[in-house]
Amino acid sequence: MRLLEASPKQRGQETEQKDAVVVAGIEAVCEPSPQLMMPPLNFAMVDDGIFRSGLPAAANFRFLLSLSLRSIVYLCPEPYPEENARFLGRAGIKLHHFGIQGQKEPVVNIPEETIREALKVILDVRNHPLLIHCKRGKHRTGCVVGCLRKLQKWRLSSVFDEYHHFAAAKARKTDQRFMELFDTSSLLQFSASQC
Amino acid sequence: MRLLEASPKQRGQETEQKDAVVVAGIEAVCEPSPQLMMPPLNFAMVDDGIFRSGLPAAANFRFLLSLSLRSIVYLCPEPYPEENARFLGRAGIKLHHFGIQGQKEPVVNIPEETIREALKVILDVRNHPLLIHCKRGKHRTGCVVGCLRKLQKWRLSSVFDEYHHFAAAKARKTDQRFMELFDTSSLLQFSASQC
Repeated sequence: MRLLEASPKQRGQETEQKDAVVVAGIEAVCEPSPQLMMPPLNFAMVDDGIFRSGLPAAANFRFLLSLSLRSIVYLCPEPYPEENARFLGRAGIKLHHFGIQGQKEPVVNIPEETIREALKVILDVRNHPLLIHCKRGKHRTGCVVGCLRKLQKWRLSSVFDEYHHFAAAKARKTDQRFMELFDTSSLLQFSASQC
Repeated sequence: MRLLEASPKQRGQETEQKDAVVVAGIEAVCEPSPQLMMPPLNFAMVDDGIFRSGLPAAANFRFLLSLSLRSIVYLCPEPYPEENARFLGRAGIKLHHFGIQGQKEPVVNIPEETIREALKVILDVRNHPLLIHCKRGKHRTGCVVGCLRKLQKWRLSSVFDEYHHFAAAKARKTDQRFMELFDTSSLLQFSASQC
């Protein structure tokens, strides 16, 4: 994004140049209307340099380029889809892979230590701009962003409001319990040392 | 926000100092748990330096301070609520007031010229960081952000997805038609001259 730092006109030119030089070959997998942007499913800006979404499809690659991403934090256990991995390679985006099993209530076991490790990467501004995503951008991404909001000292009801905003009818009480119990103290220290 | 530029620890100290010096008197109208942040209804980050929400309540003032806002773009015809106006005065936030009547379908008449004037303020980075809000952060704010997304060359289906994300069950076909027909060309030029 960052539309307003360079004008859309200027940015259009820059992006086209960048596309041509840095990510030659991506054109072929982009949608038929190359001028228009299509953010991934459940896309949103979380904070300066931090975005969230579901799994990007080829149709979203042009949009992702406009974010000038340095890293992706991927939260599913499955290998990164081949087409997406090729896109990352061409665009020079580093993949941070934290495999968290997709789960269904009532047996939901969210690995706290993995979430903590993912948050360390997210807190490190050297990895920004950064996109956090799982498959649908609801539960795993929702939990990670919820823990980040606790670090930002958001009231729990506001953390849950945001979680519901993305999970909608698929919201899980177990995810909310996880976010409530998540202890941010060790990350506060980590964040302070990285910034 | 901008949690990750200064550590939460550092920021907490800075914010407390700022609160004490710049906005003395705000404590009295804040919620009982002053350490925790409560974003306004339907709050989200739109882009670098641009936020959206419903009408902030006193309980949200501490959170708004953390955004270091320079301006607010208010989209309702009613005078700005007295308590909010006092907060803006104390915090040194400039109010840009564009009165757009709240409407109900089927008779919805969105004043295109007013939306265009609001967008000029929003596009001007000298006004950032900036919060756009109406009453509930759904229709008027949704239309303005939708037009901004068109400027950012988002595909119309993505613009509508985002609009629906906030308007949910209250989404209006008339708003979508307005966004579809809105001509961004004059603003592209304006945006280029400001940035």
